[in-house]
Amino acid sequence: MKSIFSKIIDLEIPCHLVAQDKNAIAFMDINPIKKGHVLIVPKIEVDYLFDLEVKMYNNLWLFTRKVASALKQTIACQRVGVSVIGLEVPHAHIHLVPINSVDDMNFANKISMSSEELQKIAQSISDNID
Amino acid sequence: MKSIFSKIIDLEIPCHLVAQDKNAIAFMDINPIKKGHVLIVPKIEVDYLFDLEVKMYNNLWLFTRKVASALKQTIACQRVGVSVIGLEVPHAHIHLVPINSVDDMNFANKISMSSEELQKIAQSISDNID
Repeated sequence: MKSIFSKIIDLEIPCHLVAQDKNAIAFMDINPIKKGHVLIVPKIEVDYLFDLEVKMYNNLWLFTRKVASALKQTIACQRVGVSVIGLEVPHAHIHLVPINSVDDMNFANKISMSSEELQKIAQSISDNID
Repeated sequence: MKSIFSKIIDLEIPCHLVAQDKNAIAFMDINPIKKGHVLIVPKIEVDYLFDLEVKMYNNLWLFTRKVASALKQTIACQRVGVSVIGLEVPHAHIHLVPINSVDDMNFANKISMSSEELQKIAQSISDNID
């Protein structure tokens, strides 16, 4: 069965799209731990990040770098933190989180954001992508 | 002033070395959150990961992939998690943590390990590097 991320990639489930290229997609996490929490997902459905073949892996991190730069321009923060855990959805994904303290990377601390707010932030980040 | 990581790279401070190449070094975190917690550090002293120039950035993630593979062979775990926070030391670094649950990535949960234990694990991971 397709992962929820593959359904998003195939437009079967909507998302708050930030950016995409041939190999990867970036959209807002709908259960954010901070305002501006973005997910980066390779379009190929591989469970474990480090199982991606080298070219795809490199492209994914370059795409991540580009999105992180736009994210930092959009949301006031000290920096953009990175986390890869991946135990909940069997499709590799990178979390990008605007942070000001180490606590901001605590995945137990979910915040509530409306679909309208998420969409507005997605658009703002998207507008800042080079 | 040099960062603590640059002092490690320049052999002014000892570490439990896992691996190194021309551009990056991997050693055990001496304040681990889980057994097998490794730090990956670029040899060039850049504060923010996403400020590394592209070639160095790509090399760092490829080196990380290699170390993560050896780490997973060494420490029984579901997968190796990745975290980049970097607010404490102004020298970019990637945390690799063997995980079985999302709680295993909680940086509030430090564990205590002796220098001997850390050295033994460093050697075991090192032995598993291709």
